[in-house]
Amino acid sequence: MEKPLIFVTNDDGFTAPGIAALIAVVKDFGELFIVAPDKPQSGMGHAITVNQPLRVAPLSFFGEHRAFSCSGTPVDCVKIGMFKLEGKKPDLIVSGINHGSNCSTNVLYSGTMSAAVEGAIEGVPSIGFSLTDHSIEADFEASKHYVREIVRRSLETPIDKGVCLNVNIPKLPLELIKGLKICKQAKAFWDDTFDVRIDPLGKEYYWLTGEFENSDDSENADIQALENGYVSIVPTKFDMTSYETLEKLKAWEQ
Amino acid sequence: MEKPLIFVTNDDGFTAPGIAALIAVVKDFGELFIVAPDKPQSGMGHAITVNQPLRVAPLSFFGEHRAFSCSGTPVDCVKIGMFKLEGKKPDLIVSGINHGSNCSTNVLYSGTMSAAVEGAIEGVPSIGFSLTDHSIEADFEASKHYVREIVRRSLETPIDKGVCLNVNIPKLPLELIKGLKICKQAKAFWDDTFDVRIDPLGKEYYWLTGEFENSDDSENADIQALENGYVSIVPTKFDMTSYETLEKLKAWEQ
Repeated sequence: MEKPLIFVTNDDGFTAPGIAALIAVVKDFGELFIVAPDKPQSGMGHAITVNQPLRVAPLSFFGEHRAFSCSGTPVDCVKIGMFKLEGKKPDLIVSGINHGSNCSTNVLYSGTMSAAVEGAIEGVPSIGFSLTDHSIEADFEASKHYVREIVRRSLETPIDKGVCLNVNIPKLPLELIKGLKICKQAKAFWDDTFDVRIDPLGKEYYWLTGEFENSDDSENADIQALENGYVSIVPTKFDMTSYETLEKLKAWEQ
Repeated sequence: MEKPLIFVTNDDGFTAPGIAALIAVVKDFGELFIVAPDKPQSGMGHAITVNQPLRVAPLSFFGEHRAFSCSGTPVDCVKIGMFKLEGKKPDLIVSGINHGSNCSTNVLYSGTMSAAVEGAIEGVPSIGFSLTDHSIEADFEASKHYVREIVRRSLETPIDKGVCLNVNIPKLPLELIKGLKICKQAKAFWDDTFDVRIDPLGKEYYWLTGEFENSDDSENADIQALENGYVSIVPTKFDMTSYETLEKLKAWEQ
């Protein structure tokens, strides 16, 4: 049997420790193909580069693994990677491990998860992994244990078509993590504010800041699971239709 | 009764004819507050600016209406506009009119629709409007008729919480448009390719290109509705959880 082909990407850029941790695990499962941004691309959501060309360069950074850096967004990395594979379909796309949480509505802002969503759109089983620790020195040891477990299961039983997994791992040592919890995306949002500053020329500029506000205490909401010490897995689909509202609005057709 | 407060944005930038067409209609319904990108931001999806500060400048371009240009993405425009409103909540956010279709999975790549999705996350009824014509000289007359109709209905009966509307208008004269159709997001995707070119220094660069492939012939899919001459309206939610897959994956918790 041929070894699975595993496509690896992230949004923190190819030099981030998180992608190295991911590669250290998934290399045991198959042949790797890596396309990662050449600079940090956090918060890029599902952005694609349409008004500029992309640069793509072979990368020796990951030793024997076939790898490229890309000047675009995480979704660009998936698209250009699929192009470079010339019709050969990966068995799995893994994105991350992100330095920082992508739970709840962060799935929409996240480059890490948007790469996984793009994979699902292109018909490839895909998983985004995030550790709830923004630090460049984050400890990925517990994460690696759960990445191994989830990749193994996902290769055994393919993820449903049109769905990818949003996996968030709490910042805890392995022995304090209680296990896996299959969750829904919590109803929460950023209560934004902006830090207004004055530049050396006397002109205003604005830095985005804010607090993440959670009003969802459902036991199976991802934020709740993380707070309770579980690894949260939200099966995430790209069909954003609200079928409930669709039925209600039918009256507008008259 | 106080006039409704209507927040206007887009992704083609404040100089685009599409936003002028939108303003020409919605000014009749209330007081306007406009924050639009200072340059084209197509394909920016739900990107936010996190590694750079934003610039925001008052804009006299729209005459008597209170308006700002913003150096960021469409989602940044919504966030900074909400900040500038100092807690005053708009009654409606309208985004567009986009030069080009945002039907089907384009909802994920679209800056126009991501601004509307951001509005929904922030609890404001929101609508993204797009005309299926990329031309800078597109004719917005029929679009204006339907924008008026849909804005009127949305102010009369507020859109469900957590949902925004993805409205696409076919490139047809008014008399050939058959009416409104409440739709689901069609299952379709971009079959991407890249145009590989050589720059004057001899180095490769890549332009994204491709064909939009539709395999969804459901009568209520948005692509189908547009092809049949209807204005498509997809109620769009930001909860991306696949509840079907959630139930199936429960076994992983053991």
